[in-house]
Amino acid sequence: MSAYDVIRKKRDGGVLDEDEMRAFVAGCLSGEVPDYQASAFLMAVVLRGMTPGETVALTRIMLESGRTLRFDALPGPLLDKHSTGGVGDKVSIPLLPIAASCGLFVPMISGRSLGHTGGTLDKLESIPGMTTALGEEAISRQVRSHGGCFAAQTADLVPADRMFYALRDAVAAVESVPLIVSSILSKKLAEGIAGVVIDVKCGRGAFMETIGGARELAGALEAAGEAMGVPVKTLVTAMDEPLGAAVGNAIEIEESIRVLEGRGPADVASLTVRLAAEMFVLGGLAPSVADGEAIARRAIDSGRALERFERIVAAQGGRLDPGAPRFGLPAAPVTRIVPAAERGYLSRLDARAVGEAVRGLGGGRLRREDAVDPAVGIVCRKKTGDAVAPGDPLFEIHAASAEGADAAARRLARATGVSAEPVPRARVVLDRTYPG
Amino acid sequence: MSAYDVIRKKRDGGVLDEDEMRAFVAGCLSGEVPDYQASAFLMAVVLRGMTPGETVALTRIMLESGRTLRFDALPGPLLDKHSTGGVGDKVSIPLLPIAASCGLFVPMISGRSLGHTGGTLDKLESIPGMTTALGEEAISRQVRSHGGCFAAQTADLVPADRMFYALRDAVAAVESVPLIVSSILSKKLAEGIAGVVIDVKCGRGAFMETIGGARELAGALEAAGEAMGVPVKTLVTAMDEPLGAAVGNAIEIEESIRVLEGRGPADVASLTVRLAAEMFVLGGLAPSVADGEAIARRAIDSGRALERFERIVAAQGGRLDPGAPRFGLPAAPVTRIVPAAERGYLSRLDARAVGEAVRGLGGGRLRREDAVDPAVGIVCRKKTGDAVAPGDPLFEIHAASAEGADAAARRLARATGVSAEPVPRARVVLDRTYPG
Repeated sequence: MSAYDVIRKKRDGGVLDEDEMRAFVAGCLSGEVPDYQASAFLMAVVLRGMTPGETVALTRIMLESGRTLRFDALPGPLLDKHSTGGVGDKVSIPLLPIAASCGLFVPMISGRSLGHTGGTLDKLESIPGMTTALGEEAISRQVRSHGGCFAAQTADLVPADRMFYALRDAVAAVESVPLIVSSILSKKLAEGIAGVVIDVKCGRGAFMETIGGARELAGALEAAGEAMGVPVKTLVTAMDEPLGAAVGNAIEIEESIRVLEGRGPADVASLTVRLAAEMFVLGGLAPSVADGEAIARRAIDSGRALERFERIVAAQGGRLDPGAPRFGLPAAPVTRIVPAAERGYLSRLDARAVGEAVRGLGGGRLRREDAVDPAVGIVCRKKTGDAVAPGDPLFEIHAASAEGADAAARRLARATGVSAEPVPRARVVLDRTYPG
Repeated sequence: MSAYDVIRKKRDGGVLDEDEMRAFVAGCLSGEVPDYQASAFLMAVVLRGMTPGETVALTRIMLESGRTLRFDALPGPLLDKHSTGGVGDKVSIPLLPIAASCGLFVPMISGRSLGHTGGTLDKLESIPGMTTALGEEAISRQVRSHGGCFAAQTADLVPADRMFYALRDAVAAVESVPLIVSSILSKKLAEGIAGVVIDVKCGRGAFMETIGGARELAGALEAAGEAMGVPVKTLVTAMDEPLGAAVGNAIEIEESIRVLEGRGPADVASLTVRLAAEMFVLGGLAPSVADGEAIARRAIDSGRALERFERIVAAQGGRLDPGAPRFGLPAAPVTRIVPAAERGYLSRLDARAVGEAVRGLGGGRLRREDAVDPAVGIVCRKKTGDAVAPGDPLFEIHAASAEGADAAARRLARATGVSAEPVPRARVVLDRTYPG
């Protein structure tokens, strides 16, 4: 079956078999199938969907397009955590050392900022000296020695995903359950892990804006994991407002350290503990989520998690200076406060608008090849449900220039809503789709 | 609005305004918008459709992407005819000299074979010496002097269509009413014509397989023409079996000459006369289709139409030799008869299968850059409704080699069906969507 026939079959709503898709993906990787055929295929998948069987087949094909990491005979469970991406979502950064300090092994391969969402790698690389380009050997060594690493995808892991992802991103073919599932799972399974906890973001600042869409994605991830023999557990969590207060790169590292010091914002701290607990349950280290949360809290309270973070960062060349202002992280030259104009309760804090304002400041990227400014960002000084009075700081803008700060302030003017009546705080965990 | 946003808006079923599409098309032509974004956009249009307003806007944008031919003060109406493409559809070839010999002026810019369908230019270029690469000046001069020309699209006419068409063809984005309408009408309107008759093919061998789809396309063509101030008249005609007997290149020229001699196969002869009559009505040269048909028949019976064909071919360098076997057209070295195995009535003669067999012989092309063998082809010796007996010739294969003939015979084995009961002959004209 030619590439043309594969596209036509999917365009017409047909079900592709594994051989048809394997040949198509191989053609895309060899260059025999040009980009413009691949992108048309991806658009057809977005609009026609895929069956669960097709999704699993595509995941397997993508996984087998590259190498798989091997970690022989580790003394504890090899697990990972993944987030479908949001604004201010720095959870992976404090989560990894918590998990590693409690006996899990976590080869956390992460991504970069794109559009209005941040990227774990960009945040980590705001730490002076920190490298995330580790290569397979360094990943293996560091996971064994320190229980975890923060790594960029290597060239040999899942090349099919790298190719498809770049195209999907350029042609508005990101928001598709089968494409998201195959992309996430192929990358995670290439780590050779025994299971993964996935935080499926839901709301204005996420790919999935509705709870129905998020549940569908969560269910598809779990089903595909089961079909491939690797347990996948999902939480559906809110992404209407940013997670935590800081949105940017260096300022999210600062906030991550505060979570590890036990003094982070309540939402990001509790979600970090919860996701760590889910990993402990998945790895058999805790009989229940409540027990898992107790384990995670002890790791924080004892200082072990922070110590482990510093060890992992140092192993990757990162220089954090506990004595310096902001741990020696880069600071933006211009800081600007955006004050509230009305009295009442913050009823809306638009994660997407904040994310786009940060991107406008240079803290994110529109195109994969754009550079990211590590120092800029926005701190949300109020969250949904907080009382506000005229003059109260709503946002703290960290900008490279006064003009940049002005532009961000203009964007943020539309990012909030204030209600005269009290507003409940936003719930973070919306759904846990699996039993237990 | 960025190219990405245009794609996303269409992906989500939004309605694009003319400025958004104009910027997108301009970006595609300048290279700023890469092929893979253009193809994803086209696939989104295939699956999401376009409103009549969007279709007209896209047609205008494509038309304005290039130059428009000008024919100042001709002594008669400047009209054209177009077919959406089929198997054995050589109607344009005898139609042009009939129309030209009766006072119409026809700048017939045609296309090439693709997939299972033939191309007027490939057929004409089987005439030794014939060139169809005329350029604007030669088109203008020849239409004025001889009433018509057979020309390939020039580089300056509708570059947006050339770019989109190549992509559509590669990514299964051909079968889309708005894309077909904008492609056909932008090219025809670039000829500067005052009206056009369009033969919308319907059936197994056409883009539109159902009468509903064909009527939708016909209606969309007429509506878009009206919105752009150029009358478009459509006929919906059958393309379940090949039109006429010959399917190929040189052998279709032979059959076209027989039509002009008044001894062509009934279906192709009557459709040619009918379409000429529609043009005469559209141009005000005949008060009714019946009168127009009488005019067309007189042009054939008098020999004027054939004489005009020879004049136009000669003006384009073509050498037809009335004294030589097959007019001096190239002949294939191998001829093979495929006989009937059963007794009864031919109930099915699959145009697509015959077209694909001809392509397999080398008479058509899978890719735009493939060369076409002018001599090969298939003559259908029986048509639907004909009585057949074991041993009767069903097909006459003209091949470049014995192996080619064998392969074609195998393909043709599945192209026919025989019924014990009498079967009516296929109707050619299925629908005339406009009144009168």
